[in-house]
Amino acid sequence: MKYIRQSVLVLASAMLLVSCLKANDHIKNNVIKRKETAVPKVKYWPNGAQLVISVSMQFETGGQPEGAESPFSGTPLPKGQPDLPAESWYRYGGNEGIYRMLDLWKKYDIKVTSHVVGTAAEKYPEIAKAIAQGGHEIAGHGIAWDNQWDKNYDDELSFVKDGVDVVAKITGQKAVGYNCNWLRRSPHTLKVLQELGFLYHIDDLSHDEPFITKVKGKNFVVVPYTLRNNDIVNIEGKHWSPDQFLAQLKFEFDRLYEEGATKRRMMSISFHDRIGGTPAMVHAMEEFIKYTREKQGVVFMRKDNIAKMVINDPNTPVDNSEAKFNN
Amino acid sequence: MKYIRQSVLVLASAMLLVSCLKANDHIKNNVIKRKETAVPKVKYWPNGAQLVISVSMQFETGGQPEGAESPFSGTPLPKGQPDLPAESWYRYGGNEGIYRMLDLWKKYDIKVTSHVVGTAAEKYPEIAKAIAQGGHEIAGHGIAWDNQWDKNYDDELSFVKDGVDVVAKITGQKAVGYNCNWLRRSPHTLKVLQELGFLYHIDDLSHDEPFITKVKGKNFVVVPYTLRNNDIVNIEGKHWSPDQFLAQLKFEFDRLYEEGATKRRMMSISFHDRIGGTPAMVHAMEEFIKYTREKQGVVFMRKDNIAKMVINDPNTPVDNSEAKFNN
Amino acid sequence: MKYIRQSVLVLASAMLLVSCLKANDHIKNNVIKRKETAVPKVKYWPNGAQLVISVSMQFETGGQPEGAESPFSGTPLPKGQPDLPAESWYRYGGNEGIYRMLDLWKKYDIKVTSHVVGTAAEKYPEIAKAIAQGGHEIAGHGIAWDNQWDKNYDDELSFVKDGVDVVAKITGQKAVGYNCNWLRRSPHTLKVLQELGFLYHIDDLSHDEPFITKVKGKNFVVVPYTLRNNDIVNIEGKHWSPDQFLAQLKFEFDRLYEEGATKRRMMSISFHDRIGGTPAMVHAMEEFIKYTREKQGVVFMRKDNIAKMVINDPNTPVDNSEAKFNN
Amino acid sequence: MKYIRQSVLVLASAMLLVSCLKANDHIKNNVIKRKETAVPKVKYWPNGAQLVISVSMQFETGGQPEGAESPFSGTPLPKGQPDLPAESWYRYGGNEGIYRMLDLWKKYDIKVTSHVVGTAAEKYPEIAKAIAQGGHEIAGHGIAWDNQWDKNYDDELSFVKDGVDVVAKITGQKAVGYNCNWLRRSPHTLKVLQELGFLYHIDDLSHDEPFITKVKGKNFVVVPYTLRNNDIVNIEGKHWSPDQFLAQLKFEFDRLYEEGATKRRMMSISFHDRIGGTPAMVHAMEEFIKYTREKQGVVFMRKDNIAKMVINDPNTPVDNSEAKFNN
Repeated sequence: MKYIRQSVLVLASAMLLVSCLKANDHIKNNVIKRKETAVPKVKYWPNGAQLVISVSMQFETGGQPEGAESPFSGTPLPKGQPDLPAESWYRYGGNEGIYRMLDLWKKYDIKVTSHVVGTAAEKYPEIAKAIAQGGHEIAGHGIAWDNQWDKNYDDELSFVKDGVDVVAKITGQKAVGYNCNWLRRSPHTLKVLQELGFLYHIDDLSHDEPFITKVKGKNFVVVPYTLRNNDIVNIEGKHWSPDQFLAQLKFEFDRLYEEGATKRRMMSISFHDRIGGTPAMVHAMEEFIKYTREKQGVVFMRKDNIAKMVINDPNTPVDNSEAKFNN
Repeated sequence: MKYIRQSVLVLASAMLLVSCLKANDHIKNNVIKRKETAVPKVKYWPNGAQLVISVSMQFETGGQPEGAESPFSGTPLPKGQPDLPAESWYRYGGNEGIYRMLDLWKKYDIKVTSHVVGTAAEKYPEIAKAIAQGGHEIAGHGIAWDNQWDKNYDDELSFVKDGVDVVAKITGQKAVGYNCNWLRRSPHTLKVLQELGFLYHIDDLSHDEPFITKVKGKNFVVVPYTLRNNDIVNIEGKHWSPDQFLAQLKFEFDRLYEEGATKRRMMSISFHDRIGGTPAMVHAMEEFIKYTREKQGVVFMRKDNIAKMVINDPNTPVDNSEAKFNN
Repeated sequence: MKYIRQSVLVLASAMLLVSCLKANDHIKNNVIKRKETAVPKVKYWPNGAQLVISVSMQFETGGQPEGAESPFSGTPLPKGQPDLPAESWYRYGGNEGIYRMLDLWKKYDIKVTSHVVGTAAEKYPEIAKAIAQGGHEIAGHGIAWDNQWDKNYDDELSFVKDGVDVVAKITGQKAVGYNCNWLRRSPHTLKVLQELGFLYHIDDLSHDEPFITKVKGKNFVVVPYTLRNNDIVNIEGKHWSPDQFLAQLKFEFDRLYEEGATKRRMMSISFHDRIGGTPAMVHAMEEFIKYTREKQGVVFMRKDNIAKMVINDPNTPVDNSEAKFNN
Repeated sequence: MKYIRQSVLVLASAMLLVSCLKANDHIKNNVIKRKETAVPKVKYWPNGAQLVISVSMQFETGGQPEGAESPFSGTPLPKGQPDLPAESWYRYGGNEGIYRMLDLWKKYDIKVTSHVVGTAAEKYPEIAKAIAQGGHEIAGHGIAWDNQWDKNYDDELSFVKDGVDVVAKITGQKAVGYNCNWLRRSPHTLKVLQELGFLYHIDDLSHDEPFITKVKGKNFVVVPYTLRNNDIVNIEGKHWSPDQFLAQLKFEFDRLYEEGATKRRMMSISFHDRIGGTPAMVHAMEEFIKYTREKQGVVFMRKDNIAKMVINDPNTPVDNSEAKFNN
C-alpha cells in the first residue's frame, strides 16, 4: 500500500517534470507553437498540396540602365557621370546575392523560378549557369532592363525572343514563363508570348491561385505575382526592416494555409538579387521556410511546373478580364 | 500520520503541477493574458455595451478611374495607355478581397457596413448581392469614384442619388449612410444627404463616439470614421507590415475599452477590398477579433444600427461645428 | 529520521513551486523584468533625481491656418475650398485629445508643460482652463500658428506678447517658457523672449540636459526639445505604428536612465493634441509611464520648474554656440 | 528499500527543480537562447575569426554646409536665413553623440574607424582628439562636407590631402582609409588615394568581405561599407524606430555568422554622430553587442587593421570591376 502511494508520488513528479518541460518547449520554438491543422481530405491541387508556394528570384544585376532604381537614384548624378556606389550596390547581387540564395534553396531542397534579364546573363554567364544547374527554372525577363509596355508588336516580340535566346544559349534552358519589367505589359504582350511558345506569364495580381486566360482562343496560364511578399518594397533601403518582411510572410502564410483546406491556394514570393540576396533578407526567408515546415502539405514549386499541372486541369479557374486585348 | 504527511506531498506536487501549467498557459495565449476588467455597472450605450466596434468594408473595385491610387500610380503611364498590372491589382478586391472578408465576418458572426461605389456594383453585381445577403449594411459611396467636394448642389444630389439607386436595384437595400470619396465633402453634402433621406454620414474624424449635428434644424447622425485604423495607410504597398496594423488596433482597443467603463466609446475600423482583403490583413483582423473576444461587453455593429440607436438618445452629444454650412 | 527525509521532500517541492512560479512571474510582467539598478550615491540633479522626464503637450487645435499639415495636406484642395475632413481631424485634438491626455497625467500624477497657441485658447477657452486647472504649466506658442523666423524684432515681440496675454487672460497663468512654430526661431527670438521676461525656451536639440545660454550677458535657460520622442513623426498617419513609438521611448529611457547614474540627464517627450491624444498613443504613453515606474529616481517635471531649478545651479552647463545672435 | 524509493522522489524533485528553472532561464535571456555553433576548424580569416565586425563612426558635425540633410531640410529656409533648430540638431553630434558612442566602445573594448571631416575637427578639436585617444582609427572624410564626384584630379587631391593634414595635425594620426561624401567617388578617386599613400577605401557595397582592386597595377584594399546597417536610414527622423535597426543588425549577424563557418565574412555597421549617437540608437547598439557576445569567434576591428591583415593574404579576393578607371 505504501509502495503504491509512493509510486503515485513518483508518477506525479514525473508527470510534472514532463508537463513543465513540455510547456516550456512551446516557448522555446517560436514562443508559441501553432496547433497542427488536420490534413484536408479533399484535395484542391492536382498534387494534393494544401498550399503551393512559389518563389521568384530575379537575376537582373549587370543589366540595369544608367540611373536604375537604387538607394542612390533619388538624387541622381548628371547624365554620363558614373554613379560608382550605385553600380557597386548592383554588383552585390551578382557577387553575393544570387549565390547566397542558391545556398538557401539547396539547404531546403527548394526549386525556384529565376527571371533572367538577357544582358545580365551575358555579363555574368557563370551565375546564369549556376542557377540552371541548381535545378531552378530559367524564365524570361526581356533582353534588357527596359520598358516593354511602349513597344509595338514586332519590337516587343524581338525584345522577348532575344532575351530567351541569349539566356537559353548560356543555360541550355528555354524559358516558358515570362515577367515584364515592373510587371508593365503592353496590350499585345500575351499574344507575343503565345506566338513564341510561352506557357505562362506572371504579371498579374488579381488572384491567389493560378488561372487560365484565353489568348486567341487557346489556354494561357497566369501564375500570379506579388507586390506584398516582394523584397522590392525595400528598394530605397529605408523605413523598413527585415523582421517586418518576415511578419508579412507569416501573416500571409497563416491565412492562405488555412484557406487551402477548402480551396486551391498559392503563395507567391519575390526576391531580387541585390535586395533579397542580403544576409538579413535570406535569414528572414530561412526563418519563414522553417515556419512553413511545421505544417503538412506545404509544397514549394517552380512556376513552370505549376503551369503544366494546372493548364489542363478542369478545376483551374478561367478569367478573361482582358479579353478585349487577347482575341 | 504518515498517510497525512504523504498526502501533503501529493498535494504539494499536484499544486505545483497546476501552478506550473497555469503559469505557462498565460504564455501560450498571447504571451501575456490581460486581466479581465469588471463589467461596468452604469451603461453608456443604449445596448449596454462597454465598447462598440464598427467595421467599414469599402467595395470600390471596378469603379476606379484611370490612374487611381495604387502601388503603380506613383509612376503613371501616359494617358490612354492601359496600366494592366494596376488593373489586375484592383480586380483582386473583387476576386479575392471581398469574399475573404465575408468569410471572416461570417466565422465570427460580425455584421459590417459596406460602402459601395455604384459603378463597382454595376460591374460586379454578384459581389454586391453577396455582401447584402451576408446581413451586412449597404451604404452609399457615390455613383462613381470621383471628387464630390467640387460639385454644385444639384450635381452632387444626382451623384449621390444615382449611386444609391443603382446599388438598391441590385441589392434590394437602400442606403441610409454615406461616405464621400477620400472623405472630402462639399459644404452642402449634409443637406444633400438629408434631402435624400439619409440618416447618417461618416466623413468626420473629430470624435470617438457617434454624435448629432443639426442640418436645417433636424438631427443628422455622424458616425465618425478613422484614418488610424484604416488599411488605406498601406496603399503604396511599402514601408509597412500587417503586424504594425495589428499593434495599432490592439493599442487603440485597449485604451477605448478602458474608457468605455466611464463614457460612451466607439472604435471605427476600415478595410478596402483590394488592401484589407489580402490574406495577411485578414489574418491581422482575425487576430484582432480574437483579442477583443477576451473582454466582456464588446459589440460589433453596423453603422445604420448605431445611428438608429443614438439618434433619439438624449445622451448622444450634439456638435454643430459646421453650423454655417448646415443651416 | 523518516520524518526528516520526508520534510526534505516537502521542502524541495515547495521550493520548486516557488521557483517555478517566480520564474514565470518574470515573464508575466513585460516578458523580462529588468534588474533594478542601485540608486546613485552622487546626485547630479538639485532634486536628487537620476532622470528627469519632461512632457510637452501642444494645444494648437483651432489655431491652425488653412492647409496646415494633416493627413490630407499632401493633396491640398484649392485655396478657399474648406477641407472638411481635415478640419474635423483637427477638432479631434480639442474634443478628445487634450482631455484624454489630461486623464492620463492625472492618473499618474504627472505635471506637463502645455504649449498653447493664442488663437486655439481663444477658440476653446474651456480647454485652456482645464489644462491650467490640472496643475500643468501654460507655456507660450505664439498668438497664431504662423512662421516666426521671418518676422522683424518688433513684429516678433508683438506676436509672442499677444499670445501670452491672450492665454494669461483665459488661464490666469503667464507663460515663462516658449516654443516656436516648428522650432524655427529668428536670430532675435531669444532677445525678444528676454525682453518679455521669459525664463527659458525649448527650440534646441543639442543636449540631453538643460543648459544656460547668455542673452545680453544674462542667464537664459534652454530646456531641450525632441524630434525623436515626438508624436509629430506620424503627422501623415502612415508608415508607422504606436508600438514603434513605445519602443523608441523605452530604448531612449533605458540609455538615459543608465547615464543618469553618472551625469545629469533629461528626457524630453512631445505630444500634440490631435496626434498624441489618440487612444493608441495615449495607451503607448501609459505603457511607457508604467515602464519608468519600475525604476527609482525617475521624476516627471514641468519645464518651468526645471528651468527655475537649474538657472542658478553652478553645475548647469553653459553653451553659447549662438553668441553672435544673442549679444 | 524505502530509503531508495524516497531517494528517487528527492532526485525526481531535484531534477524537476533544475529543469524548470533551466527552461525558464532560456526565456529570461532574450526569450530564446540561440544554440551555440561549433567553432569552425578551418579558418578563413588570418586571425582565425569566424566573423569580423567593423563599425564606422562618422564625425561630421560642424562641417555641414547650409541646408545639409536633417529632419528640417525637407522644407528649407531661404538661402542666408540661419536654420537654428537644424544647427542645434547637428551640434548634438558633438555635444552628446560622439562621447556617448566612445563610452560604449570603451565599455566593450571595441575599436572603431572614425571618418572625420576636416572642418569638423577644426571646429571641435577636443572631440577629434578624444576619438584618437580612445584607440580608434582616424580615417579621411575630406576637408569639408562637399561633393567629391564632380572635382577634377588636382582639386580632388587637394580636397583629400587637406582633410588628412588638418586632422593629422590635431590627432597625431594620419589617415590610411577613406570615405567620400555620400560614398560618391569620382572616376579618379582611387588613383588620388593611392598617390596620397592610402591603403584602402570603403565606398563600395559589392561584397560582404574585404577585397583587393588593382590601382595602376598595385594592390588597393576595399573594405566594403553598408547602407543596410547604417543609421543614416533615419536621417528624416520618422517612419522608423530603433528596434527595427536592432532587428536588422541581428538578422544580418545571424546569417553572416553562420556563413563565416565556411567562408570569410565581414559585417559593416555605420553610425553618424548626430543619429547613431542618440540614446535609443546607442542602446540598440549595446543590445546588439551583447547579442554577438553569445557567439565564439566574433571580432570587432578597425578597418585599417583589416586592410593590413588582408592586403597580402593570398586568400583575399581580387575584384577589378572598375579597371577602366584605375589603370
